[in-house]
Amino acid sequence: MALLTYPLADKGDRPLYLYLYECVRDDIVNKKIAPGDKLPSKRVMAGHLNVSLNTVAAAYEMLATEGYIISNERSGYFAQDVSDFAKRHAPRQKYENIEENSREYFCDFKANRQGVQHFPMDAWSRCMKQASLQGENVLVTVPYNGLLKLRTTIARHLKESRDMDVSPANIIIGAGTEYLYGRLLQLLGHDAVIAMEDPGYRKLAAISGSAGNECRYIPIDDKGLRVDMLHESRANVVHVSPANHFPTGITMPIARREELFGWVNEAEDRYIIEDDYDSEFRFSGQLILPMYTKDVKQRVIYINTFSKTLVPSIRISFMVLPPALMERYVQTMNFYSCTVSSFEQYALAEFIEEGYFIRHINRTRKRLREQHDCILRELKSCPLADIADITEHNAGTHFLLSVRTEMSRQQIAERAEEQDLNLSFYSDYTVFAQAGGVCELVINYAGIDTEKIPEVVRRLCWVFETGKEI
Amino acid sequence: MALLTYPLADKGDRPLYLYLYECVRDDIVNKKIAPGDKLPSKRVMAGHLNVSLNTVAAAYEMLATEGYIISNERSGYFAQDVSDFAKRHAPRQKYENIEENSREYFCDFKANRQGVQHFPMDAWSRCMKQASLQGENVLVTVPYNGLLKLRTTIARHLKESRDMDVSPANIIIGAGTEYLYGRLLQLLGHDAVIAMEDPGYRKLAAISGSAGNECRYIPIDDKGLRVDMLHESRANVVHVSPANHFPTGITMPIARREELFGWVNEAEDRYIIEDDYDSEFRFSGQLILPMYTKDVKQRVIYINTFSKTLVPSIRISFMVLPPALMERYVQTMNFYSCTVSSFEQYALAEFIEEGYFIRHINRTRKRLREQHDCILRELKSCPLADIADITEHNAGTHFLLSVRTEMSRQQIAERAEEQDLNLSFYSDYTVFAQAGGVCELVINYAGIDTEKIPEVVRRLCWVFETGKEI
Repeated sequence: MALLTYPLADKGDRPLYLYLYECVRDDIVNKKIAPGDKLPSKRVMAGHLNVSLNTVAAAYEMLATEGYIISNERSGYFAQDVSDFAKRHAPRQKYENIEENSREYFCDFKANRQGVQHFPMDAWSRCMKQASLQGENVLVTVPYNGLLKLRTTIARHLKESRDMDVSPANIIIGAGTEYLYGRLLQLLGHDAVIAMEDPGYRKLAAISGSAGNECRYIPIDDKGLRVDMLHESRANVVHVSPANHFPTGITMPIARREELFGWVNEAEDRYIIEDDYDSEFRFSGQLILPMYTKDVKQRVIYINTFSKTLVPSIRISFMVLPPALMERYVQTMNFYSCTVSSFEQYALAEFIEEGYFIRHINRTRKRLREQHDCILRELKSCPLADIADITEHNAGTHFLLSVRTEMSRQQIAERAEEQDLNLSFYSDYTVFAQAGGVCELVINYAGIDTEKIPEVVRRLCWVFETGKEI
Repeated sequence: MALLTYPLADKGDRPLYLYLYECVRDDIVNKKIAPGDKLPSKRVMAGHLNVSLNTVAAAYEMLATEGYIISNERSGYFAQDVSDFAKRHAPRQKYENIEENSREYFCDFKANRQGVQHFPMDAWSRCMKQASLQGENVLVTVPYNGLLKLRTTIARHLKESRDMDVSPANIIIGAGTEYLYGRLLQLLGHDAVIAMEDPGYRKLAAISGSAGNECRYIPIDDKGLRVDMLHESRANVVHVSPANHFPTGITMPIARREELFGWVNEAEDRYIIEDDYDSEFRFSGQLILPMYTKDVKQRVIYINTFSKTLVPSIRISFMVLPPALMERYVQTMNFYSCTVSSFEQYALAEFIEEGYFIRHINRTRKRLREQHDCILRELKSCPLADIADITEHNAGTHFLLSVRTEMSRQQIAERAEEQDLNLSFYSDYTVFAQAGGVCELVINYAGIDTEKIPEVVRRLCWVFETGKEI
C-alpha cells in the first residue's frame, strides 16, 4: 500500500485529527485501504503529513475505538473488513397505522368537550409571549413537582374559588390526569385496591389494570357511590367525583360525603381520590365545597385538570397530596422530572393571574347554559318526548336521555350512523347490566353549537323512528 | 315560619330557579330557616312568588340533591341541619417542603447540560408564535402517539442525520425519556428483566424498580457492555447507549454491536433499547450509524430526547417501536393521551423544518469543542497533571479524570465544597466497587463557560492539595 496522502488544506473548520480520521475511515469503507492492510505507524504518518504525533494518535485511536482498524501489540495497525457493517442496511418493516383522520360527525355526543373555537387563543398567546420574555428563568429545569409560580397561583385560585387551604409544596403538576394517576398508583403501591364509581371514569380502570392494581366497581344510586358496598369491597382507595359525577351529573350530598369520611377514617391506609374535573362548569358553580375542605384526617387526594377547562391539547393537571403521601413522594419518586414544559407552566400562571381563566370559565358556563336550555327545549317539544325521560343535574356539560324502545343497541347505532350522529351509550360506562326496553344515552352537549341543535334533535327523532313524518 | 319572600329582581343573569335555590340555601345555612322547619309546598311557593311551578320544583330538587332539605313522601320538604357541614373546615396540615432554591455552585460538574443562555430563544419564540397562528389546528386533541406533523419531521430528520428508515406511525412522542420508559416497561410487561450498563444511566434502574421490573447491572469494558455477561444475566431487555456511553463516552465498536445482535436474535422476547441521547454532540458527529439501521429482526427500540439537545425545560422525547411492539401498544395502551402539548409539538416541528435545530446543534458542538480543548489544555498543564489521567472519547460533553490520591471521597467532597465546586464521582454511576487509591471524576464540561475554566482548574488543584503554592 502506497503511503497515504490527504489534502490537509481541505479540512475546513474541523480539527486536524478529526479530518485525518475521516479520510482514513472513508478509505477503509471504500476499500482503498483493503481489509488486512497495515497502516503506517503513527510516527511515519506524522512525518509524512507533517503533523504532530498527537494528531495521528488521536485519529488512530478513534478508528480503533470504532472498529475500523485494530491494533496488534507491537506489530502495528491493520484495516478491518467493514463492508458488511457499512453496506448492510436493515430493511425496516413499518407499522402501517391508520393515521388519525378520525371521523368527523355532524354531531358527536361522545365528545365531552367544548368546541376549540371558543378557546381564548389571543389571551393564551399573550401569556405564552410573556413566558418567553422571562428569558433564562423559563429555561432552567423546573422542580419535579412543577414550577413554584404556577403552584402558588393554583393554591391561590383554589382558596378563592373553593375555599381550599393548599400549600404549594403539596401540589404536583403533571402532563394530564392519566399521567398523575400513574404516578399516584405507583405511590400507593401495587397492593392498593382501587374502588371506582360504576358507571364512571372507565380510563382509570384501564390505568389501574396496566399498573397491576386490582379494581372494584361500586354501583351508584341517586346520591352517588354506595358507601355500604364500598365497605364490602375490601378496596382501600376510592375514586369519586362528588361535585359532578360522570355521566349522571349527580352531586354527592352532604350526608353521603360524611358516610365516605366514615369509611376512610376506619383504617390507616385508606384514601379518597377526589376528582373535581369539570366542576367549574356546573351552572350553579361550586355548590358544596370539595371534600378536601372537610378532610380532618388528611386522607383526601384532590385532583383536577386544566385540559378540560381550557382545551384538550394543553396537558396540565395537578394533584394535591396529603402531607404523609407528599413526604413519601419526595423520598421515593422525586427523581421523575416534571412532564410539563416550563413555558406552558409560566403561561398558565399568567393566564390565571391576569384573570383570563375566570373570564373564560364564566363565558363558557354562560354558553353551556344556553346550549343546555336550547337542547332541553327542543327535546321536550319533539316527538321523541313521548317515549323519553331526561335526567338532569345541572352538571353543565351533559345529561341522561332514556328512550323506551325495543330496538337493539346495534340497530340504534346503525341508524345514528346513517344520520351522521355518534351516540354515547350509558352502558359504555358501566359494568352492571342495564334493564331491557330502554336505551340510555349520555347527551354531552358542550360541543354542540346552539344553531345546530334543532337539526340534531330532528335526526335523533328519526333514529328512534319517532320522527318519520317530520 | 313566615312565608319566604325573595327579591326576585336581584337575580342578575342567573336563571330564576338557580336564584331561588341560592336564596333558600343561604337561609338554611344562616338558620333563618331552622333545621326541621317545613318549607312551603311547591305550589304555594310558586303562587306566593308569582313564578312557575317548574321553577320552584327545579330549585327544591337541587336543594334536596345537595342535602339542604329532605322530602318526606306526601308530608313535604324539611330543612336539614347543615351547620356542621357549612362551618366545620378542616385545618389542613401542610407538607413543609424546602423549596427549590437549589444551591448554585461556582462550577457544577454534575450538571450534564449546556448553559441555558445558549438556547436560541428568539427562534423558538418565533416557532411558538407560528404554532399559535395555526388556529384551531393547534387546539384539537393530538393522537395518542403525537402530532403527525412532528412525527413526520422527526422521521425525516432521522433519515437525513442518521440514515434511519422510520415510519411516522412507529414513533411515540412523550414528555421526557423517563415518561417513555415508564410506558415501555408497561408494554414489555412486569416479567421483563432489564439489563443496563454499569456504570450507566442510574435513573432507569429507579424507574424499573418502581415499575416492578427486575434489573441486572452488566459491567462494561473499553468496548462497552460485556455481552458475555449479558448472556449469563437471564435478562431479556437490554438498555445501551452505543453512540455515547455515559459517563465514559465510549462508542461501542462494530464487533461488539454484532455480538449484541447475536444475543438479541437468540430468543423471541429479547429487545435492545438503543438510547441515542446526546449523540448529536459527539465532535465527530454520528460516526457509526445507530444499531437501529442494522436491525434485521426488528428488535431495536430507538429512543432519543430533545430535552438534552435543546433545553431541559422543554419536555419532548420520542421512541421508535418495532412493528410488533407498536401493534401491541396500539391494542393495549393507546388510551393514554399524548403528554406533550400540541403547541410545543408544532413549534418543535417548525424549529426542525426551518433548520434552527441543526444550526443550534452545530453551534453547540463548536462551542463544546472549544470548552473541551480549553479544559484539557488547562488540566494537562496544571500541577494536578502529575497525579491524574484523562480518559477521553470525544463524547462532546464529558470525560473522565482519575486522580491518584489517598484522600477519602468524603474529604475530597468537603474540600470541593469549600471551593464551591460540585464534583461528580464515577462511583455514583456504578454498583461495582472501585479500586482504592484513585478518585475517578466525571468532568461534565458542557455547562462550564470557557472563561471560567482556568479558575475551575485552579480550584480543582487545591482540592487535591496539588495547588497550594498557586
